[in-house]
Amino acid sequence: MAEKYVIGVDYGTLSGRAVVVRVSDGKELGSGVYEYPHAVMDTKLASSGATLGPDWALQDANDYVEVLKHAVPDALLEAGVSSADVIGIATDFTACTMVPVTESGVPLSNLAEYRNNPHAYVKLWKHHAAQPHADRINDLARARGENWLARYGGQISSEWELAKGLQLLEEAPEIYNAMYKFVEAADWIVWQLCGNYLRNACTAGYKGNLQDGEYPSKEFFAALNPEFENFEQKIAHQIGQLGDAAGALTDEAANWTGLPAGIAVAVGNVDAHVTAPAAKATEPGQMVAIMGTSTCHVMNGALLREVPGMCGVVDGGIISGYYGYEAGQSGVGDIFAWYVNNQVPGDYFDAAKAAGKSVHEHLTDLAAEQQVGAHGLVALDWHSGNRSVLVDHELSGLVIGATLTTKPEDIYRALLESTAFGARKIVETFNSAGVPVTEFIVAGGLLKNKFLIQLYSDVLKLPISIIDSDQGPALGSAIHAAVAAGAYVSVGAAAEAMGSVSKGVYQPNAERGNQYDRLYAEYELLHDYFGRGENNVMKRLKALRREVAAND
Amino acid sequence: MAEKYVIGVDYGTLSGRAVVVRVSDGKELGSGVYEYPHAVMDTKLASSGATLGPDWALQDANDYVEVLKHAVPDALLEAGVSSADVIGIATDFTACTMVPVTESGVPLSNLAEYRNNPHAYVKLWKHHAAQPHADRINDLARARGENWLARYGGQISSEWELAKGLQLLEEAPEIYNAMYKFVEAADWIVWQLCGNYLRNACTAGYKGNLQDGEYPSKEFFAALNPEFENFEQKIAHQIGQLGDAAGALTDEAANWTGLPAGIAVAVGNVDAHVTAPAAKATEPGQMVAIMGTSTCHVMNGALLREVPGMCGVVDGGIISGYYGYEAGQSGVGDIFAWYVNNQVPGDYFDAAKAAGKSVHEHLTDLAAEQQVGAHGLVALDWHSGNRSVLVDHELSGLVIGATLTTKPEDIYRALLESTAFGARKIVETFNSAGVPVTEFIVAGGLLKNKFLIQLYSDVLKLPISIIDSDQGPALGSAIHAAVAAGAYVSVGAAAEAMGSVSKGVYQPNAERGNQYDRLYAEYELLHDYFGRGENNVMKRLKALRREVAAND
Repeated sequence: MAEKYVIGVDYGTLSGRAVVVRVSDGKELGSGVYEYPHAVMDTKLASSGATLGPDWALQDANDYVEVLKHAVPDALLEAGVSSADVIGIATDFTACTMVPVTESGVPLSNLAEYRNNPHAYVKLWKHHAAQPHADRINDLARARGENWLARYGGQISSEWELAKGLQLLEEAPEIYNAMYKFVEAADWIVWQLCGNYLRNACTAGYKGNLQDGEYPSKEFFAALNPEFENFEQKIAHQIGQLGDAAGALTDEAANWTGLPAGIAVAVGNVDAHVTAPAAKATEPGQMVAIMGTSTCHVMNGALLREVPGMCGVVDGGIISGYYGYEAGQSGVGDIFAWYVNNQVPGDYFDAAKAAGKSVHEHLTDLAAEQQVGAHGLVALDWHSGNRSVLVDHELSGLVIGATLTTKPEDIYRALLESTAFGARKIVETFNSAGVPVTEFIVAGGLLKNKFLIQLYSDVLKLPISIIDSDQGPALGSAIHAAVAAGAYVSVGAAAEAMGSVSKGVYQPNAERGNQYDRLYAEYELLHDYFGRGENNVMKRLKALRREVAAND
Repeated sequence: MAEKYVIGVDYGTLSGRAVVVRVSDGKELGSGVYEYPHAVMDTKLASSGATLGPDWALQDANDYVEVLKHAVPDALLEAGVSSADVIGIATDFTACTMVPVTESGVPLSNLAEYRNNPHAYVKLWKHHAAQPHADRINDLARARGENWLARYGGQISSEWELAKGLQLLEEAPEIYNAMYKFVEAADWIVWQLCGNYLRNACTAGYKGNLQDGEYPSKEFFAALNPEFENFEQKIAHQIGQLGDAAGALTDEAANWTGLPAGIAVAVGNVDAHVTAPAAKATEPGQMVAIMGTSTCHVMNGALLREVPGMCGVVDGGIISGYYGYEAGQSGVGDIFAWYVNNQVPGDYFDAAKAAGKSVHEHLTDLAAEQQVGAHGLVALDWHSGNRSVLVDHELSGLVIGATLTTKPEDIYRALLESTAFGARKIVETFNSAGVPVTEFIVAGGLLKNKFLIQLYSDVLKLPISIIDSDQGPALGSAIHAAVAAGAYVSVGAAAEAMGSVSKGVYQPNAERGNQYDRLYAEYELLHDYFGRGENNVMKRLKALRREVAAND
């Protein structure tokens, strides 16, 4: 019998990537990338040139369709397979990324009357201008003792549907009232592919506050704003389980992509979450860390537990049949990048160039020569705030222990270590909450820093497995496409055949681990002192900064 | 009547500087500098090439005489005055810098039998290898409730005579026993000039623990080590008051210097302390801060008070008739230099060069554009430890508040501010202890950074006066030479005529001062948390570092 193929499409922040994958063994045969023409609109609106406020981040939904028209044909061409042998397509998306649409799924920004209204556009995940709304939501939820709050570690994010929705209502009621639904882009793109709107269980739970089949109550919404009372109508819709088919590819979408009309289109999904099956991490206890500019942790659990400071727990949020747990570190690779761009002298750049290395490699090699604790430093990895377990974006970075002999590589190493300590704090919090982490699997761009991954293994005292694919999310989507097309009975079975992981590539060194324990003890002490209210200096410094900026 | 002149010679860490000054008005007419041929021996002994231990710092006393032979004639030549019109010479020195000598004042290192023994050489002020001895001295003094301890803010330094003496006894008893006296270099050079050994009141008090005419007791010395019982005999000697003549220039010294034999040679003194009269700061409440790589604070007081964490209070320690108070900040300019050398990207160097500025100037100019608090940072200025008021060299630096948008100039400004906060902590501690600071006068190399001095004025909420001389210590010595020669009745009167200060050049800005109060409140909170034992993380990190180095 002839080989069959599936397409996985990974929608990132700046581009979309399509990959052609063989159904029998997950081999990646070709890929195509397409950058969004409008990229991220965070300073001005393209249509009018109007200035956007601080912390805004918009996109144009039409760009997502362009990915289908370019990246999918390119991937097919590179793979050299016949499109007739493709049996399904699946997508994953950034989240929470929201599109206000008409009843037929047209983004309001496509309507002439709204095209110069910023609120008619896609609000990207990193649109943070709804923080005041999120604060009100959290305060009210705490005051009312809303029982869904514990499912989100005690606090919801300004990135999520409720905060973005409340901002939309209060700042642009005309858009709020005109929209039929406020739709996750993860679902909107599937709607474009198959003509059918299904709300995926993953974002409905993690970003839309759907728990045990219920959204927050009418009373809760009304207490935020009487006009917000019926917000559920704007977001609620039929739920689709991950790996199910949402429908069949329409003629129009077949035209865009060059794929056969009628093939399976999978229910929408999220980039981090699809990476779990791509790394064969479909069983409880297997924590996948997607380590890049930030780190996202996803893990299945057999039981429902409340983990303090997790991002969320959702029934079927990663794999249908398990509780999907999510946590995160807001800043990881971007802290290292900030350091290299702002705190490293020119002679390090020269030396790196002479050695044919990146500055990161050069600093890592210098740092790797040191014994644990030789630099005399401890850092807190909060330059971009803390997502888990403190859930506080008012926190900031700290480096302690510098002397007049401290070298740039010393602080670089302390920053690497601080992110490992942050990961350990998350793992230990899951363990203590009755959701034990038994395996740590790393995906993402930071895999290339072998010293860093060994450091994580030593600090976590866990073997570390690594994903073998460079395009984990797209592979994960392809796995879902194969299941939606009926090639496998479940995501777990498809992951077993198509996923790719190398087990236990990094083994913890006990001696170093014990030495790191001493630094981790210092990290924990500082973590709690600055992170749990004993000294709120970081919040006060940020407040002062805002005050000064407002008066400037 | 013809103008008369005096010579001031300032002995620094790496060189000696002689200045010719007009007695009538203090005008500086010429100067000469001579670098010590042996510089600082901190890795190996020049005579044998033997490796020195960590934290050692030696000098060769003969180099000090070379300064007299070169710098003084050079200064006379540049000044173009007749040596016949020179009526006196005075010197100031680093302290505590100790020379072990024979009864005729010959350094033991000049004797053939000892020339390869490191302990026979001058132990420079920054020889820190006697820290274990200092620890024992402090522990014992506390345990015995020695009443002199409060005169040193509760702790004496490893730099001082007792610690250096105890190390000498225990590591080189043959030198200890062979030496007639353990002499401050400040007094040894005067001995070379006039053939007479007088022990100056300044170092006897600040560095030799002489209080109310008494050294620590025999019992105290014996409890440290039975062989140390008679240490007083090694250091005690007739005291000379500052500004008095120690004797007359010998024929030999006249030959070295080209000066007339028989002119007055003043009692020895210390670089920081002579700067006070050079800046006309001879009255109680006038605090002089000599701001360079580190900062030394000296101030007269009418009353004897115990100031927690001061370096010391000595009767006549600065000006005869007043109690002289001393405090210090271990790291100031050297923190800024460390930052520029280790944490500033190449493009800042390029931009500075293009603008014809130093990198310090470039960073300062960028930082100066900011509003107070705009960077969102607070730092602790402990990269080189804390001399006052915590007296703890196990402390280290801290920067808190960094985010992914923090720029190099932000942290630079935070470091500048941290040293101003450190100065405020000292001033407030003096105020609280009943020794009020009424005027703040700045001398030293950091005067050239006008933004920094204005920042100090705003933070301290005090007008800042500045010394007008670039060679404050040498001018201060010249003032003492004039008094020793009888040209003025007192150091105060000579300072009035010869000193140079511009009053109130910097005026505090109340609005900025109030804004800085908020940052200073954070500094204080962190200062006490990390500095007063609540979280000894800095000490533990240094201990771990030493442990790792020992095992490496």
